[in-house]
Amino acid sequence: MKPKILALDFGGTKLAAGVVKAGERKWQNSQRQLSPPGANAKTDIEIIKSLAQNLLQGEKPAAIGVSFGGPADFATGTVRLSHHVPGWENTPLKQILEAEFDAPAAIDNDANVAALGEHRFGAGEGCDSLLYITISTGVGGGWVLNGKPWRGALGMAGEIGHTVVDPAGPLCLCGKGGCVERLASGPYMAQQVREWLESNKEAEKGQLLRRLAGNNLEAIAPPLISEAAARGDELAKEAIARAGWAVGVAIGNAANLINPQLFVLGGGVTKAGKLFWDTLRRVARETALPEVEFAIAPAKLGDEAPLWGAVALAEQLIINN
Amino acid sequence: MKPKILALDFGGTKLAAGVVKAGERKWQNSQRQLSPPGANAKTDIEIIKSLAQNLLQGEKPAAIGVSFGGPADFATGTVRLSHHVPGWENTPLKQILEAEFDAPAAIDNDANVAALGEHRFGAGEGCDSLLYITISTGVGGGWVLNGKPWRGALGMAGEIGHTVVDPAGPLCLCGKGGCVERLASGPYMAQQVREWLESNKEAEKGQLLRRLAGNNLEAIAPPLISEAAARGDELAKEAIARAGWAVGVAIGNAANLINPQLFVLGGGVTKAGKLFWDTLRRVARETALPEVEFAIAPAKLGDEAPLWGAVALAEQLIINN
Repeated sequence: MKPKILALDFGGTKLAAGVVKAGERKWQNSQRQLSPPGANAKTDIEIIKSLAQNLLQGEKPAAIGVSFGGPADFATGTVRLSHHVPGWENTPLKQILEAEFDAPAAIDNDANVAALGEHRFGAGEGCDSLLYITISTGVGGGWVLNGKPWRGALGMAGEIGHTVVDPAGPLCLCGKGGCVERLASGPYMAQQVREWLESNKEAEKGQLLRRLAGNNLEAIAPPLISEAAARGDELAKEAIARAGWAVGVAIGNAANLINPQLFVLGGGVTKAGKLFWDTLRRVARETALPEVEFAIAPAKLGDEAPLWGAVALAEQLIINN
Repeated sequence: MKPKILALDFGGTKLAAGVVKAGERKWQNSQRQLSPPGANAKTDIEIIKSLAQNLLQGEKPAAIGVSFGGPADFATGTVRLSHHVPGWENTPLKQILEAEFDAPAAIDNDANVAALGEHRFGAGEGCDSLLYITISTGVGGGWVLNGKPWRGALGMAGEIGHTVVDPAGPLCLCGKGGCVERLASGPYMAQQVREWLESNKEAEKGQLLRRLAGNNLEAIAPPLISEAAARGDELAKEAIARAGWAVGVAIGNAANLINPQLFVLGGGVTKAGKLFWDTLRRVARETALPEVEFAIAPAKLGDEAPLWGAVALAEQLIINN
């Protein structure tokens, strides 16, 4: 009988669990739910425990893989903190779960886990080296090198969102100018557009976007910017092209530096449409040396990348035993 | 009896060979000589063969490690080309040497080999992950990750010299603006200074440098710029600070992306003095996220890094057998 794997995803606002037989590609059982209002680490852990026990129906998993939406230390299995949910500081999540389910557990941050998921089950199948990049509320990344996660000396590898691509660019929360995250993340992209519209009230540029937002600048978010760009709004097109440019330079730089086979791109901003993708592909190609070849592909697993990556993490525990 | 290792370095203008007992840190015998005027691949190979046969004194090496100063493919053992010496296109150097010495050989480009040398015998001893950066006529790099060379999917990893740090910067030969090589390599640094002096003949800034060069702008090279900077010349100080800034951003970006323990810096430009090192250390620290820790150290092996790296390459052949 194939061993059972329990996969868990602490996604910030969403919690998910799945059970799968090792080597299979369909959930036996899976469930996701929103974190309740006023959630904290304790309530999130209780919810996940009960989701999982419910899915397991009394069976014991052979291994547990966990994706955590925030800084987490794979080596010790400890969550450093969450930027979304209070109370996570230095939580020994691996130990808590191992005690609850009497099975070995491995945890890592969501970008590393999603990278592993795409490598094992998604756009990176059969590929020996890749960088997974998520472009969403923030911009993060996770490496697979030689078919294995590369986490860096201190588990901090993959922070492509805080590589500088334009030192003259606007200031990022991290303190530097022109980080990829400052230029390409959804909230910053929207902020940039809102600020422009506020200080250029009479301009023709951006009128379409303004109308789509019902003249309420607070309603401006990446999907609306994409829609306006698709309908020809110049301001929206500029915003999307700038994001694509920043991601393209970062990919080209990473290609020159590490020369992976593949870049896999996921996250909400990657749904921004053709202009975004065309720009980033062109700029990445221009930035990389001609002899540095690589492919760029959209993520395949979508929201399930962390959960499937958690399966891959757990599989490694079984193989190592 | 310990097996003997033959280490070879095709350095462009210099050729070197050394013989060492596996595990030891002193040459039994080593020799270097300049490539003769009008050298080509064939004459360089003949010279190396005769240097090596001379050093070996009839003994057979257990393995051969080779550093090549230009694009070379480790997987096939083939030199792609040399930017300095004609006739190297697609030379099967590994096979040629294996036939000559009846021993297994491994070749790689000089940056990768020097990285391995510093890791095994130099500034990176005991360190699991590092990026070696050489800042000289060009700017190149080589990775050691998990204690092993990381060459990339196509053997092109380490091209930190062609990562963009200032898209608004001057155009590099590679076609992009603001590459590290364009801002920090010796020849470009000198060119930038010469161009400024040519178009600002009456300016006070740079007068000291001009005098040190005997008013001959062609005599301006990195050592002279360093000297002028040390004596307080503002133009020279700016040139060195700009180079340090570019290297610092590139290091900070690489730290965020890969999180290695250590950066090892070698090559002539790293002798530019305190201003260069202070600037690059400060900017690297500012560019990396606060939680991304790393060390920066000068290379220890100097000109011998490729030859000692070749020893490390050859050792791996012995271990693998």
